[in-house]
Amino acid sequence: MKKPEIRKRICVDMDEVMADAVAEHLLRYNREFNVSLTKDDLRGKRFWQIVPAAHHQVLDELLRAEDFFEDLDVMPDAPRVLEALQRHYEVFIASAAMEVPSSFNPKFRWLQCHFPTVPHTHIVFCGDKSILRADYLIDDNPRQLERFTGTGILYDAPHNVAVTGYTRVRNWLEIEALFLSEK
Amino acid sequence: MKKPEIRKRICVDMDEVMADAVAEHLLRYNREFNVSLTKDDLRGKRFWQIVPAAHHQVLDELLRAEDFFEDLDVMPDAPRVLEALQRHYEVFIASAAMEVPSSFNPKFRWLQCHFPTVPHTHIVFCGDKSILRADYLIDDNPRQLERFTGTGILYDAPHNVAVTGYTRVRNWLEIEALFLSEK
Repeated sequence: MKKPEIRKRICVDMDEVMADAVAEHLLRYNREFNVSLTKDDLRGKRFWQIVPAAHHQVLDELLRAEDFFEDLDVMPDAPRVLEALQRHYEVFIASAAMEVPSSFNPKFRWLQCHFPTVPHTHIVFCGDKSILRADYLIDDNPRQLERFTGTGILYDAPHNVAVTGYTRVRNWLEIEALFLSEK
Repeated sequence: MKKPEIRKRICVDMDEVMADAVAEHLLRYNREFNVSLTKDDLRGKRFWQIVPAAHHQVLDELLRAEDFFEDLDVMPDAPRVLEALQRHYEVFIASAAMEVPSSFNPKFRWLQCHFPTVPHTHIVFCGDKSILRADYLIDDNPRQLERFTGTGILYDAPHNVAVTGYTRVRNWLEIEALFLSEK
């Protein structure tokens, strides 16, 4: 009898990895204040660091709007590559959704809509990602990668340009090359 | 310099462990059909197995009602013992909430209300609990305990009376004795 293959497990973050949350946040902020900030303005910084303190509350409210997380663009190539990963790995989606409880349902619906191959059993809404038992975590947040006990893969984002110590992927084609080139 | 204590990690399920979901489900079912089923009727069985097939859809709808998970009674002694556990262990709450997406927000609010000592970073909504990296999982569902890679602790429930192979706890006083008697 053929021994069942034990597949390695990959956890994938949502915001800034599967979904372009920063683009939507910029769009809504620019519209609100009639300005034209871009991702380049965010290099090495978090959004709240480049706007006046008087705008911090609105910045936060924009993110907590009921429709925010449902409107996000899908990162290029993500659905195709994620489906390919699922053929060779066990893939879980792991979002730090607890920070924004209003995001639970929009995030769940967004996944169902754009990534229908992900079963609900393999979606995790959490806070501290040290709770994840997996071989890899693909995330843009170095704090989460630091806590994670497996191998962290840093997904490139304006705020993390200065971070070192992790394999960095700049897009889903690089994820494909990293995990599937020898499959 | 004193070496920081590495605390063991306990994951705790919500329904049937922290919250009396079966009591509420029975209450709503009995009210709907003017009957008087009790927990004794559920010994060794799941709810759907003791009601006519024609009622299965309603049984499911009762559980998916927006207010269902917000109305649940807290299991006796759970808040006090959980807070005591937090002094000696790292405690995460882990609910298989993905099965019922309408439960996300009510469950989150229920935790904030009844277990305010649990930080949002330590709440996990998931499906397959094999994703949890922890030393212990206290759960009434033997399927979840089977998948979990740490030590499973079976919380007694009518449906699991015949299950063997795990340390069984019948209430929170027994959880207290198991985890805190030597602390």
